[in-house]
Amino acid sequence: MELTLKSPQEVSTVAVVGGGVIGGGWVLHYLRMGHDVYAYDPFPAARERIQQMVDDTWSLMVDLGLRAGASRDRLRIVDSLEEAVRHADVVQEAVPEVPELKSDVFAEIDRYAPAHTVILTSTSGISMTTIQSKCEHPERTAVGHPFNPPYLVPLVEILGGDRTAPETVQWAVDFYRLNDKDPIVLEREVPAFIASRLQEAMWREALHMIAAGEATVEMIDISIRQGPGLRWAITGPMMNFHLAGGAGGIEHVLDHFGPTLKEPWTRLVAPELTDELRQLVIEGCERESGGRPVAELVAERDRTLVAILRARDEMERQLSDARSGDQG
Amino acid sequence: MELTLKSPQEVSTVAVVGGGVIGGGWVLHYLRMGHDVYAYDPFPAARERIQQMVDDTWSLMVDLGLRAGASRDRLRIVDSLEEAVRHADVVQEAVPEVPELKSDVFAEIDRYAPAHTVILTSTSGISMTTIQSKCEHPERTAVGHPFNPPYLVPLVEILGGDRTAPETVQWAVDFYRLNDKDPIVLEREVPAFIASRLQEAMWREALHMIAAGEATVEMIDISIRQGPGLRWAITGPMMNFHLAGGAGGIEHVLDHFGPTLKEPWTRLVAPELTDELRQLVIEGCERESGGRPVAELVAERDRTLVAILRARDEMERQLSDARSGDQG
Repeated sequence: MELTLKSPQEVSTVAVVGGGVIGGGWVLHYLRMGHDVYAYDPFPAARERIQQMVDDTWSLMVDLGLRAGASRDRLRIVDSLEEAVRHADVVQEAVPEVPELKSDVFAEIDRYAPAHTVILTSTSGISMTTIQSKCEHPERTAVGHPFNPPYLVPLVEILGGDRTAPETVQWAVDFYRLNDKDPIVLEREVPAFIASRLQEAMWREALHMIAAGEATVEMIDISIRQGPGLRWAITGPMMNFHLAGGAGGIEHVLDHFGPTLKEPWTRLVAPELTDELRQLVIEGCERESGGRPVAELVAERDRTLVAILRARDEMERQLSDARSGDQG
Repeated sequence: MELTLKSPQEVSTVAVVGGGVIGGGWVLHYLRMGHDVYAYDPFPAARERIQQMVDDTWSLMVDLGLRAGASRDRLRIVDSLEEAVRHADVVQEAVPEVPELKSDVFAEIDRYAPAHTVILTSTSGISMTTIQSKCEHPERTAVGHPFNPPYLVPLVEILGGDRTAPETVQWAVDFYRLNDKDPIVLEREVPAFIASRLQEAMWREALHMIAAGEATVEMIDISIRQGPGLRWAITGPMMNFHLAGGAGGIEHVLDHFGPTLKEPWTRLVAPELTDELRQLVIEGCERESGGRPVAELVAERDRTLVAILRARDEMERQLSDARSGDQG
């Protein structure tokens, strides 16, 4: 079948299948983006939770800014999957992470959704090739993996399975960009994709440290929240090191700290810092910095860091005032 | 020798030994905190760079808010280590990460500093026991490891070596708290301490992915900066999972996602999720949440996330205006 997709600009109706934390979060996001949203979950209690989540969080969405025409009244929580998807221009699936369940749900969505509808899964690690395996039209399916909470965190990881059409991947990129997201596209299937792999490496090292009595839960959290986590929210880990290298940037860091890769500084065995890897990292940081000198990037990081520290402090003050008000 | 430390409130003079990115950063921080600051580096070029760094960054310090009496005129860049430390109530060392060099510099600081002076090293990974090995008064030495840039990032990791007095560790905690830092104390020496181990685990996984062609430098940075990095700046990694667990919190996450520890989601081999480790993690998250329900913590995270996203956007706008002004 040839793909006849609507342009992402013309999307007006979104279906969300699955009513957990992620599904409910997508409902909020797509309502804020000014769409009609159909939501479905097989469990009546989950359907009630979707409404509750929208009611609890809508004022924050208003505060964040609604797209033209956005309204919580444009949500329809329905009793069947068919009813949810038959009007949809795009379906965002968010059912539990069970391969058999996901592939069955995808087959059903594929059966009932119009021919022009793109079907996206929120899976954080199951292969798209598996999820699309029972579909009659797998070419219109792709991964659109969000981060919690999907109504606030911009990242979406996109990739196709063996039978996904390239235009579907491009469509998903355009659609998410239009809908206030910052997508990245994986060229091939890697278990857990990118961000979750990095997160998992840190999580495992943290669990090892707690198990070994090297750190407490609180020490882990303070160490990241008050330390490198602040920088990562601005630069990410690679540019962070580029900025730490002074005028020499990442090249200086790799040559200077390369040997520490062999130190027992984590339980993760390091890769060989080959000439090729060294070059890939240096060229990547150069592309990201757009030829601007490190000193200029550092000044910008610092100003953003001050802005973030202030925003956190101000929020802490407001929350603490609100809490003491509750008690008064 | 019995330790006769000044109270941390009485500190008025700080010496910084070493004039690189970290040493220069400490100079800025202690000037902002309203101290007299002596700075020394054996290289004249490095001494000039300290002054340059202070000149370039002082307006940001003013913007961030100066303590009473703080002035950049209270910096004295001097020509000898003795001159730098002989008036100091506390010395913050930040010379290159070479064990032999650090232990020699510590012996020299120890020789010239007054008896009441506490000597702190900025080392990111060398054992304090090694660094203090040539000191006559090792009891007053400890690690005070900052994160770059030390004039903005609140985290300081504190720990002693075999011959550090417990009161020195407590003194360092009190001193850093008084000076706008958020210290954590390690109970024992672990290579690279805590935050850098977690950072190193993520860095190694990122390098593996780049080497294997699974991700580019830019994809790594976007994935963290626009994804989990935003949450970590608010909650740290452990509480992040607690908040992802819905009403069941971290207990639900561990029981639900425990099996994924066995998945190939990073190259780091996972620890056994024993009953004991499970309990340590649950109790830690409960202590951190102070008995408050997950829904309340999620609402607070969300409001802080909105504040951080706004602060970043606003800064991006200002910087982009400034850049187009430069070109105009």
